[in-house]
Amino acid sequence: MDQFMQAAIDEARLGRSQGGIPIGSVLVRDGQLVARGHNKRVQEDSAIKHGEMDCLTNAGRQRSYRDTVIYSTLMPCFMCAGTIVQFKIPKVIVGESRTFDGAREFMESHGVEVIDLDLQECVDMMNEFIEAEPTLWNEDIMEL
Amino acid sequence: MDQFMQAAIDEARLGRSQGGIPIGSVLVRDGQLVARGHNKRVQEDSAIKHGEMDCLTNAGRQRSYRDTVIYSTLMPCFMCAGTIVQFKIPKVIVGESRTFDGAREFMESHGVEVIDLDLQECVDMMNEFIEAEPTLWNEDIMEL
Repeated sequence: MDQFMQAAIDEARLGRSQGGIPIGSVLVRDGQLVARGHNKRVQEDSAIKHGEMDCLTNAGRQRSYRDTVIYSTLMPCFMCAGTIVQFKIPKVIVGESRTFDGAREFMESHGVEVIDLDLQECVDMMNEFIEAEPTLWNEDIMEL
Repeated sequence: MDQFMQAAIDEARLGRSQGGIPIGSVLVRDGQLVARGHNKRVQEDSAIKHGEMDCLTNAGRQRSYRDTVIYSTLMPCFMCAGTIVQFKIPKVIVGESRTFDGAREFMESHGVEVIDLDLQECVDMMNEFIEAEPTLWNEDIMEL
């Protein structure tokens, strides 16, 4: 397992252990971890704190993101994809997109490279959560 | 002046008075203000806290946004536009788009109604800021 995807999975599992939604993300530059985060809808009562947004919050004010890679355990939604496009992050590596197909085409149409590792561990983590907390999941993807 | 756009402008001016970037936003449902906010890049050392994102943070966890309208003093960027699309907010009313053209076509292509009031007051507020703090502005729109 890629060490950075492992860190994103660790973030996701930490979020789940807090009663939250198990999606984690890390930001990497030159093979070094810049920041990490996880979905905090429950923990911070925040609709915008998806894993990627929490990671980018924790990264503070970076002068540029053009030399970074963002990892997420799940394919980014339109909010997180729009952020990646706006921030000019050139590359996204995701754990899976089977439980949520997200906004891959939108990112690719703006020149973002998207790599989907299709990891069974990430699929299993989301399926366990979605089965246990369907209403919370539907709230997070705005399908209520 | 529409009372809600006035509230967004008040938020923008509050942000500027704090040393921040003068962009404000409010969320409205059934003619009632749900939440308000302003850009907090400087105040919270946060790259994601554009005016719209701060407003939506302050709105907490809404069950649905399908019956809301979001106001912003400036045309939303791709981050904020992606959030509006993801949250299924059907209508955006902006103060102006002359100083930043944002992601109007992207929102419209996803069925969001976008109304640009083209207010001189909002243009003047941004131009004053951009002239005084060009580096901060370029950081906020990721043009450094």
